[in-house]
Amino acid sequence: MCDVRVMNKVKERMLSRRDVFAAGAAAAVATMSGAPPAVAGGHGVVVDMTHVLDDGFPTYFGTPGITISRVNDFAEDGFNAFALDLGEHAGTHVDAPLHFSEDGQAVNEIPARNLVCPLCVVDVAARAADDPDTQVTPDDLSEWIGANGEIPDGACVAMHSGWAGRAGGDGFRNADDGGVMHFPGFHAESARMLIEETGAVAMAVDTLSLDHGPSRNFATHHVWLPSNRYGIECLAGLDRVPAFGATLVVGAPKHRGGSGGPARVLALV
Amino acid sequence: MCDVRVMNKVKERMLSRRDVFAAGAAAAVATMSGAPPAVAGGHGVVVDMTHVLDDGFPTYFGTPGITISRVNDFAEDGFNAFALDLGEHAGTHVDAPLHFSEDGQAVNEIPARNLVCPLCVVDVAARAADDPDTQVTPDDLSEWIGANGEIPDGACVAMHSGWAGRAGGDGFRNADDGGVMHFPGFHAESARMLIEETGAVAMAVDTLSLDHGPSRNFATHHVWLPSNRYGIECLAGLDRVPAFGATLVVGAPKHRGGSGGPARVLALV
Repeated sequence: MCDVRVMNKVKERMLSRRDVFAAGAAAAVATMSGAPPAVAGGHGVVVDMTHVLDDGFPTYFGTPGITISRVNDFAEDGFNAFALDLGEHAGTHVDAPLHFSEDGQAVNEIPARNLVCPLCVVDVAARAADDPDTQVTPDDLSEWIGANGEIPDGACVAMHSGWAGRAGGDGFRNADDGGVMHFPGFHAESARMLIEETGAVAMAVDTLSLDHGPSRNFATHHVWLPSNRYGIECLAGLDRVPAFGATLVVGAPKHRGGSGGPARVLALV
Repeated sequence: MCDVRVMNKVKERMLSRRDVFAAGAAAAVATMSGAPPAVAGGHGVVVDMTHVLDDGFPTYFGTPGITISRVNDFAEDGFNAFALDLGEHAGTHVDAPLHFSEDGQAVNEIPARNLVCPLCVVDVAARAADDPDTQVTPDDLSEWIGANGEIPDGACVAMHSGWAGRAGGDGFRNADDGGVMHFPGFHAESARMLIEETGAVAMAVDTLSLDHGPSRNFATHHVWLPSNRYGIECLAGLDRVPAFGATLVVGAPKHRGGSGGPARVLALV
């Protein structure tokens, strides 16, 4: 009975989606009480937060982010293999601190523990539908905290603007006749607030840049990255995770001295 | 008292390192009982299972796996960025089913749930120190099962041969005067046993190939990959995880139609 009571409490928390690894906890507790595990394979639901990358995926500067060339063919060589001509800032990708600093952490130097993050999702999709230039403000962060509690140490704070659904077309860059892009981002003051008031280690957007589209000075990049915190751009799947309770695992690449690179990002819910 | 009893049971299991996400479970249960969480940031220890990739990292065919070229410089352009000329099978990387099949899953088609795996580590390091051509046999797998229990559905079964420590030099390829490489791998019969008797989805090695070095026919690749299971090669960190109890999160790249690619692999212990 005792274990069942605890199990039910864990299940309640799962439903409220407030606990990091709650699904794992429920599975472990379920095993303890003799009930079948709630989830297969020892983990809860895995949500893929990564866009498929090909030469048609939109990039900030408008040039293809990847070219894929066949090197080996199964019929001829007995196996398939391809060579990749790849920009670091293509597809769902990480901005390492070095991207906007003289000597910040390169992508291979980001501590592994900072790649597993409690995920905090700030939803501005309704506002972004009316105003593509909207920014996540300190007031938005305060509102999130009021509704969900403090932002935990090691967190990734993500903007959900609904932009992931536009990745297949011109609406992702959303450039006007003068070439100025229009998409949402984080206001630089929000980056400052996260640095000064929280232990967050990462900031993520579902758009092409931490800064909103019309930015001409990368103000948010300049505040955030030199503090040895990192960014994630072009994140997918934010409509399939709770405001709080998922764990983000960021498969940042590990090439030496890199300023970032395409990353496989998964959420454990 | 009740919660404390459960918490202690969870702690015991953590110490025995038998539960996937046990650290998360302990943190959740600890929170329930009012005690401080056992782990910071909502997760246990994160072990990086990924080698740093540069043009000196050994490859199967001996040619550089990556060339990194500067595109933008912080002093001149206000930011750093690099272009990558990258082979799919370089560094710590994934072999997608498509690598050794006509129409198996490409790297972007591997189901996300298969990228989060209970990790089963078969330690043949002592034998490999005497015999670099040694292979993981069905008997090794049976011995592992006898000691640790059944291999769970969704598992990644990894060979720990001690080869990760050689990655900095010629001892990793370990080629003889005739150019034949000598390093450990999985026997094809082990791949067959895992397919027929378990729900494992991935096989990992700390060497350059699922097959051992002197293989001339890639027998293990040919059994394993066409079954729509995937491989991980050049895995690091196997000396820092338990035989069972860690969860492997495989940050496989997601370029369209790829046969594999460099992956950031993390273990949650």
